[in-house]
Amino acid sequence: MEAAPKQVTMAVIAAAAEVSVPTVSKVLNGRSDVAPDTRRRVESVLGEFGYARNPRRKAQPAHLIDLVFTEFSPWAAEIIRGANDAALAAKCRIAVTAVTSEAGVDHWMRSLTASRTDGVVLVLTDLSEVQRNRLAAIQVPVVLVDPVGQPDPDVLSIGAANWAGGMAATEHLLALGHRRIGTITGTPAVLCSQARLDGYRAALERAGIPVDPQIVANGDFHYESALAAASALLDLPDPPTAIFAASDVTAMGVYEAARQHQLRLPEHLSVVGFDDVPMAQWVSPPLTTLHQPLAEMAALATRTLLAGDSIGFDHRIELATRLVVRSSTQAPFAGRAGGRRRGRP
Amino acid sequence: MEAAPKQVTMAVIAAAAEVSVPTVSKVLNGRSDVAPDTRRRVESVLGEFGYARNPRRKAQPAHLIDLVFTEFSPWAAEIIRGANDAALAAKCRIAVTAVTSEAGVDHWMRSLTASRTDGVVLVLTDLSEVQRNRLAAIQVPVVLVDPVGQPDPDVLSIGAANWAGGMAATEHLLALGHRRIGTITGTPAVLCSQARLDGYRAALERAGIPVDPQIVANGDFHYESALAAASALLDLPDPPTAIFAASDVTAMGVYEAARQHQLRLPEHLSVVGFDDVPMAQWVSPPLTTLHQPLAEMAALATRTLLAGDSIGFDHRIELATRLVVRSSTQAPFAGRAGGRRRGRP
Repeated sequence: MEAAPKQVTMAVIAAAAEVSVPTVSKVLNGRSDVAPDTRRRVESVLGEFGYARNPRRKAQPAHLIDLVFTEFSPWAAEIIRGANDAALAAKCRIAVTAVTSEAGVDHWMRSLTASRTDGVVLVLTDLSEVQRNRLAAIQVPVVLVDPVGQPDPDVLSIGAANWAGGMAATEHLLALGHRRIGTITGTPAVLCSQARLDGYRAALERAGIPVDPQIVANGDFHYESALAAASALLDLPDPPTAIFAASDVTAMGVYEAARQHQLRLPEHLSVVGFDDVPMAQWVSPPLTTLHQPLAEMAALATRTLLAGDSIGFDHRIELATRLVVRSSTQAPFAGRAGGRRRGRP
Repeated sequence: MEAAPKQVTMAVIAAAAEVSVPTVSKVLNGRSDVAPDTRRRVESVLGEFGYARNPRRKAQPAHLIDLVFTEFSPWAAEIIRGANDAALAAKCRIAVTAVTSEAGVDHWMRSLTASRTDGVVLVLTDLSEVQRNRLAAIQVPVVLVDPVGQPDPDVLSIGAANWAGGMAATEHLLALGHRRIGTITGTPAVLCSQARLDGYRAALERAGIPVDPQIVANGDFHYESALAAASALLDLPDPPTAIFAASDVTAMGVYEAARQHQLRLPEHLSVVGFDDVPMAQWVSPPLTTLHQPLAEMAALATRTLLAGDSIGFDHRIELATRLVVRSSTQAPFAGRAGGRRRGRP
């Protein structure tokens, strides 16, 4: 028979790490007022001794899942809706926080120690290493919902099939007869932007159409840059007859640039978006776009956290996007060579 | 000297109401599995004896405010943002729930008894009397955030100045020179719809323009009905040159009806919305609309609940709306009498 393992107390940890017991407690509670070196030493000793943190937390579920955003983007409401449905089915609630500043992260983490949580769904949240360590310290399970796709091998994440979506958007325009198809990308540094752009390129190449860098414009998912980029594309001597916008808000910039250029949609210009936020069905003309399953992604993340260890996937999964054809796309304008650009009174 | 008041226990209440102690406990916890008659009897005895419910709840704040919606409408994200800012400043979180069914209300109330709350912000939530009684029973303070204005004298509520907003929208169109101004209302049964319509009428009457019932169309805040109503208005022999839409989504229906009628905005038709949801700045043309201070309303409600008894207002307050002029309004089309309607190729 093995001997029962010796009880590891905070005092044991404090002695081994050569710090005070309150310091160990601070590290365990994810407090920010601990020097980085000290925190690392304590974390390392906690690991060596296999200290079981907050066993009470596991025994008593909080019936609460945290949903944390870095901004309330247009698709935040869809994510909240999906998480809410999954949580409510399990008689749990979701706590929604947007942390737009370092102080905000701090306030949120303090509220986590005051009232508990069963897990955190981080949405597109680029936490610093210090913040990640603090989260790890309070031992809260985390799932990343990540429509823009920045996979982190240490965290479970749920994304969408961005490359396939970019390809489907472009193939839809090709099938309508467009040959001069421009694109306005998302923030280039973000992985999903790259994937959508590569899908666009793949579709063109498979159709035997060389990619023209002149009609590939960098955006950042925001309206103002999209409006400027689309205006520049429409000012070209040989403008595109169709534009694939990397988000629905980007597509709105294209709509407004077209209006300012006296071009009618879809007669003079076809537009495809990406996201399918609720707004897409209300704009005029209703927007053809790639549906991201945002609500489903959030629901899956929430169910994963509520199920605890028995999660249904390993490391990362991507849910399929789906083309929703509305009224912003049609065959290219027949009279185009005859000067469609300024042809209207 | 007075005698110390006798300690009132659940057993005392149970005996006086002629029910079992578990039944009293169920009523105190807002459970639904109590017959209405029994609940009323227990409530009445609790009142007579001045039973202090859940003193523990007050002593230990949950650092959590609940935000409850009946639907995730386009302005839900603004409300969540305002509540989040106020809560985070107090190192609290907000729990967001959309209860779209009777079962949803039930699940949410059960989660409230599992993990606690410091108060509930009900957003436009039309709870049944049974649900109100259950909320009262678990003694959770409630503030109503009510952009559509259905004041309930028993509940603190925060609304917006709908009548003044309707008047400001219409006066803006009058100042631009419009004389034939139509409107598409919200759901007539909802009080804010009436207030906005009355503001519209007041502005016309003050300008000496009789209200023409032909160009006052009933809507319901949704896109489909707005599209149908706007199409009917534009089909009239003498259509309006401007339309005041009772919500931004309603305005989107007008945009699409105008496009289908080959009318350009704002050259051929001016449109004013109501709400100023984020979408209003992205649609084409950017929408002139009445800004509802949704985030401020939610922040005030949250701060009121966090402050406990020392609330800053009594019964109800209304925050001012504000006209935001963008690009969907301009002076009426000069060539209108000469057949503006089908004048374009």
